[in-house]
Amino acid sequence: MSSSSVEKSPIDNSVGVIKPKTIHFDQELALVCGKAISQYDLIYETYGELNADHSNAVLICHALSGDHHAAGYYSEDDSKAGWWDSCIGPGKPVDTNNFFVVSLNNLGGCGGSTGPNSVNPETGKLYGPDFPIVTVKDWVESQARLADKLGIETWAAVVGGSLGGMQALTWSLSYPDRVKHAVVIASTPKLTAQNIAFNEISRKAITSDPEFHAGHYYRHNTVPTKGLMLARMIGHITYLSDEAMGEKFGRDLKTAEFNFGYDVEFEVESYLNYQGKRFSKTFDANTYLLMTRVLDYFDPAAEFEGSLERALKHSTCGYCVVSFSSDWRFSPERSEQLVSAMVKAGKPVSYAEIDSPYGHDAFLIPTERYMSIFTAYMSRIAQEVNANAS
Amino acid sequence: MSSSSVEKSPIDNSVGVIKPKTIHFDQELALVCGKAISQYDLIYETYGELNADHSNAVLICHALSGDHHAAGYYSEDDSKAGWWDSCIGPGKPVDTNNFFVVSLNNLGGCGGSTGPNSVNPETGKLYGPDFPIVTVKDWVESQARLADKLGIETWAAVVGGSLGGMQALTWSLSYPDRVKHAVVIASTPKLTAQNIAFNEISRKAITSDPEFHAGHYYRHNTVPTKGLMLARMIGHITYLSDEAMGEKFGRDLKTAEFNFGYDVEFEVESYLNYQGKRFSKTFDANTYLLMTRVLDYFDPAAEFEGSLERALKHSTCGYCVVSFSSDWRFSPERSEQLVSAMVKAGKPVSYAEIDSPYGHDAFLIPTERYMSIFTAYMSRIAQEVNANAS
Repeated sequence: MSSSSVEKSPIDNSVGVIKPKTIHFDQELALVCGKAISQYDLIYETYGELNADHSNAVLICHALSGDHHAAGYYSEDDSKAGWWDSCIGPGKPVDTNNFFVVSLNNLGGCGGSTGPNSVNPETGKLYGPDFPIVTVKDWVESQARLADKLGIETWAAVVGGSLGGMQALTWSLSYPDRVKHAVVIASTPKLTAQNIAFNEISRKAITSDPEFHAGHYYRHNTVPTKGLMLARMIGHITYLSDEAMGEKFGRDLKTAEFNFGYDVEFEVESYLNYQGKRFSKTFDANTYLLMTRVLDYFDPAAEFEGSLERALKHSTCGYCVVSFSSDWRFSPERSEQLVSAMVKAGKPVSYAEIDSPYGHDAFLIPTERYMSIFTAYMSRIAQEVNANAS
Repeated sequence: MSSSSVEKSPIDNSVGVIKPKTIHFDQELALVCGKAISQYDLIYETYGELNADHSNAVLICHALSGDHHAAGYYSEDDSKAGWWDSCIGPGKPVDTNNFFVVSLNNLGGCGGSTGPNSVNPETGKLYGPDFPIVTVKDWVESQARLADKLGIETWAAVVGGSLGGMQALTWSLSYPDRVKHAVVIASTPKLTAQNIAFNEISRKAITSDPEFHAGHYYRHNTVPTKGLMLARMIGHITYLSDEAMGEKFGRDLKTAEFNFGYDVEFEVESYLNYQGKRFSKTFDANTYLLMTRVLDYFDPAAEFEGSLERALKHSTCGYCVVSFSSDWRFSPERSEQLVSAMVKAGKPVSYAEIDSPYGHDAFLIPTERYMSIFTAYMSRIAQEVNANAS
């Protein structure tokens, strides 16, 4: 058998086997909320090679339930790739043949960076609910320090979907000199009342669980599984479109006939229960609360009397904004508001609304037009990097 | 002061002070689920006068959290009118100068009709979670028996919004000879996967509450307040549009500045918490579960291999279908599917999509075009009644 007839396995199409690294920071981080974190760890992964003049680095920012494991596998027989493996790797939109890619778990996360589930060095106990509220701005600050440690003065691009897009946008505002391009996918300049309402109900589901113990569940050797499961189920509805759910499940029954009871009757119930249960076993409830508040508080225009245009005034990067037609969590209209402000502020912006039935989750799904637009924009960046490389 | 300068109070513009009545039924009711209820009570109210040939009766069907108290007040100083007082009364769309209006609490409800919170005559204990699953068809059967007792052979109209619209539609299919008109507002021929998903999460919120005790909470002198509160909050988001929430609350803060914590920060959180808490004190959790299952199971086309057109074949009534542009729970597309089937089946149907920002709740809000269309259709019915009156 010639090697050309051997099909490439997913791992061969990926960045391969990856090992996360952790950096300790002992310089205090003052937070927007007025509190400070005296020291912290950030866990991160890198894919590809940093070039000689350190100009090909791309930062990937994760969303609510994401982490640092964006691409590749943890072992040769790992069956599950990183959460954005479809978009990061050789020949993929964020092409690791061109870029040195950095992906971290944000502060407050539960993937290995310092968060509610870490020991507070001042008390010797877990932070739990006492972990301070962080904001997107704080994350960008912590990411800038990570960039310093990695010798990255300027990002060729900061890229993210959903809450990740908010970080990309904030980088361009907080550190205009350190970002060449910001790629803001399926995001929004701020949450709507409905978005906040969904978050509040998710939080209420968690805090109403008697196993929550005011956030000190680990002290009671328990976790608020049911509340976290409910929160995830609520979130999940908002990630999918009505259409996508209809296509995926319709009104299909689990059994041949109605049982006329409260056990699972429809496929969609089964799916939500399964997804919720799985999530509740791996994610930290205090981190979930924190992430929803990070979303609620995000509003870069607020410091500029609500003017996004003025907030954008000092940015110097190129923007790529992508939205998805059936995304009703952060609808195309929200991206268009952002794009309008960029245009008014005289900033270069490429905008595409991708026709997709997959709702908010579409940013994770490598559909053709999305991949083509994402690849084109990133290729342009790679060309710029190569043209300027010393 | 002349009497003409005295402004009419809301009670004077209503059907006035109302007293509900209860009828006992001791004939067994066989249910679609295969079980039966041996005897039961239905609580109801009537507004207006039944005419000599009993041809001016209108049945009002309530939605998930509704009850028999659709119009009027319970005392001279009662500050809260029935849930559809805006549409039922003298000079209102369902004009009590023309019609004899009947409004009941459905079987399984918690407003006074037999339901989970009633004593099961076979055990001498509360039904609780053992109350059998009823369907819209069962309700129509029980309503037909109520009509018999009230001497109403034929309804001039059966009218309802949301789940109430499903009852109006089912009347026209189960008893084509007993309905002259069916008014189906903000409804749907069946739930989508997303609709079912929201219901499932609401149920899970209730059943996950440790105070639920597998539905036997009264035996433990408690109620699953937190679960029911969450369920109502989830429901509430789906009743309002993103736009309506935005107009009502925007991102307004409860206090002047962010508190950076998990207490209520935004007006919309405060509103949802208040609404949820209020509801959880008055509504029965088992009834809530039951009502969501009634919704899930509704699918009149199912018996006809999914053909709504064939399901409608034997209906003989006139239809009025109304939808609201911003209703994303039961969107205009769902009403249009119903209307298309009616047209294909050769049935007379008037359809209007009302431009409204109020989401699903729009069917409760007396906006101008809605009132004008509703009034016009009901006036036509009144004319028919008068023309045929002996």
